[in-house]
Amino acid sequence: MYLYCENIYTPEGFQKGYLEVVDGKIKGIYNEATSDDIIDYSDNVIIPGFIDIHLHGWATGSFWYEGTKESIENMSKELVKVGVTSYLATSGTDSIEQINRYLAEGKKAVDNWSPDKGAQALGFHLEGPFINKEYKGMQKEEYCLDPSIELLKGFFESAGKENVKLITMAPELPGAEEFIKYVNNEGIQISIGHSAAEFEDVERLKDLGLGGFTHTFSGMRGFHHRRLGTAGAAMYFDDMYAEFGKQTGMTVKPEAFKIVYRLKGPEGIILSTDCTGLAHVTEPFHHYIRKCTFIPDGDYVKLVYDDGTEERISKSDYDSVKDLELSFLGSVRNVVKNVQASISDIVKMASENPAKYIGVYEAKGSIEPGKDGDILVIDDEWNLLDAYVGGVKQNIK
Amino acid sequence: MYLYCENIYTPEGFQKGYLEVVDGKIKGIYNEATSDDIIDYSDNVIIPGFIDIHLHGWATGSFWYEGTKESIENMSKELVKVGVTSYLATSGTDSIEQINRYLAEGKKAVDNWSPDKGAQALGFHLEGPFINKEYKGMQKEEYCLDPSIELLKGFFESAGKENVKLITMAPELPGAEEFIKYVNNEGIQISIGHSAAEFEDVERLKDLGLGGFTHTFSGMRGFHHRRLGTAGAAMYFDDMYAEFGKQTGMTVKPEAFKIVYRLKGPEGIILSTDCTGLAHVTEPFHHYIRKCTFIPDGDYVKLVYDDGTEERISKSDYDSVKDLELSFLGSVRNVVKNVQASISDIVKMASENPAKYIGVYEAKGSIEPGKDGDILVIDDEWNLLDAYVGGVKQNIK
Repeated sequence: MYLYCENIYTPEGFQKGYLEVVDGKIKGIYNEATSDDIIDYSDNVIIPGFIDIHLHGWATGSFWYEGTKESIENMSKELVKVGVTSYLATSGTDSIEQINRYLAEGKKAVDNWSPDKGAQALGFHLEGPFINKEYKGMQKEEYCLDPSIELLKGFFESAGKENVKLITMAPELPGAEEFIKYVNNEGIQISIGHSAAEFEDVERLKDLGLGGFTHTFSGMRGFHHRRLGTAGAAMYFDDMYAEFGKQTGMTVKPEAFKIVYRLKGPEGIILSTDCTGLAHVTEPFHHYIRKCTFIPDGDYVKLVYDDGTEERISKSDYDSVKDLELSFLGSVRNVVKNVQASISDIVKMASENPAKYIGVYEAKGSIEPGKDGDILVIDDEWNLLDAYVGGVKQNIK
Repeated sequence: MYLYCENIYTPEGFQKGYLEVVDGKIKGIYNEATSDDIIDYSDNVIIPGFIDIHLHGWATGSFWYEGTKESIENMSKELVKVGVTSYLATSGTDSIEQINRYLAEGKKAVDNWSPDKGAQALGFHLEGPFINKEYKGMQKEEYCLDPSIELLKGFFESAGKENVKLITMAPELPGAEEFIKYVNNEGIQISIGHSAAEFEDVERLKDLGLGGFTHTFSGMRGFHHRRLGTAGAAMYFDDMYAEFGKQTGMTVKPEAFKIVYRLKGPEGIILSTDCTGLAHVTEPFHHYIRKCTFIPDGDYVKLVYDDGTEERISKSDYDSVKDLELSFLGSVRNVVKNVQASISDIVKMASENPAKYIGVYEAKGSIEPGKDGDILVIDDEWNLLDAYVGGVKQNIK
């Protein structure tokens, strides 16, 4: 199969030609095609698919709230519609028993994935439970624990060790240093998040294996000019990535994002969504930033806003639930607008950096020979025209 | 008079040659000298003198504490020893009566200055009294007032309007907008300082005439990612200068300075000292950052540290008092070390930018034909070898 396009974004810049995909993988970009199996995207733009390393749920599925094989399969099916071709199913800070059960269920979806099922869950991001109560944000305080290699080994058993790609933790907690060394030795990436770490903690521990910051600014000790905190470390250390959850402006003002963008450049930022699949809450959940309570109601979710207004939405109706949270593509559009990001900038932050960060860059994150055929076709206003996962064209309607 | 040097820093880069100074002004840089009046600084570096726009006192004099003609003359005499060739005598937030009295006294020194007296007081910086009690820092709460054009006119009368070069104020206070417009119309620069301004206040008012920020980070609403505050505005707005008081690391950690340095570059930063002439306190003053109480004791000042130790220093002995506060040159050395600033970077922050900021760049701030002969000779370790003010060689021992 060939995709013809005059604007194919590669690490060497834009190329024009026939992008050949064979057996799900990118073969190369050629001046001529040797078959008639050609799809014409002449004037559009081809970029690598987005990789969301921080995603609990999306639209009709929620790994965090449901923790089933089906929840991940639902997420996979819908994520391609917003440009995500692979992701990490992200757990929350829940009971050890529940995390293990969800990981074991999730593993079934990860192991049984095929490109016709949509976006690929590359494995898991464990957001906690080794986080600091003081900065728990929307995580549950009673389940915040000090780092434990023993508990982690249990997670490995449930998830399959090879499927654990990223751990968000608070490096100032007792036992963290040993834990970080162990995790790093296992080749697993660590982000700092939900953390009261001082700047000096990060400085002291980062080279042991702390690669970046989860939802930068949110859930971490803030910046002060005499006590720079976790946030100051995120701004300061050029060799650590700052992950930002969806750019709605609700949790992090666009100007605060822009300050970090100027400091680190697109090379130092990872875009994610931190979406949870809000339609699937299992108990009434008050979202203090959205000023709305989400109440489970059988096949529906009821939204009761702080101002008294209400609505009721079907959990399985994509068109209804997709607007509950800003999508990856929607967030990308906001970043384009707020910092005048170019296609190259966005590809760095949404594809290349996350792939490098979680160690899958040899197969994902760029349009290069030998890599998976995870491909987006967009127009010049960032509308998604087509999405391919492993060379398979997806249903994005 | 010619100064021969192989490294004369000019806005066009380093030049080699004979720097001719005639009638106190720079005439040009030439390949040959036409007289024998040549001083040889072959291997050294020539840069423009430092301009300290925020200086209450230094060493043997304090305009803030003494408010006399002599206090400014003492400051002028000593400042050349630390590289400052011109400055703004900076008042504090005191009673209106006292500010007026001090300005009238100070005016005598400003009007009677000649290059043989040392560094030139170019006029005044009024730090308050139109500042916010909430962020008073070391200013006196009882004298913090809402902006008043009437009171300002009184200051003009005392100081001579042409001598008021800079006003630090809090733009969120009642009446500020009208005040800013008036001051801007008078051609006087305004800095935001001791301010609870929100980011949005700065955004709304800056183009009316707010040029920068006084002692950035200190005495202002701090940064938060959903409420960026005055500090966030200082980081964000590229077209506003961030002034930093002496870089000891005590008030602003070097890493916090470095974050702003990376954001704004040397083009957006002004170095100052905010020195007060601590030897000249008029009543016991507890310095909460230095953890020391300064107690007036006739011709001496007594230092009682929080840990109980004491010392007693003669107010008129330069060698004793010069170490009470970090000098301009000492601060420059710290900046060189902390951000690897080049000579060009330092000249921008210490000479060019302050000259432009207070409107004296046509006469000061760079080595260019027609400008005043305010010249420093340094070695490559930032030791001061000679200082000239208005072409007059100063006593720097």
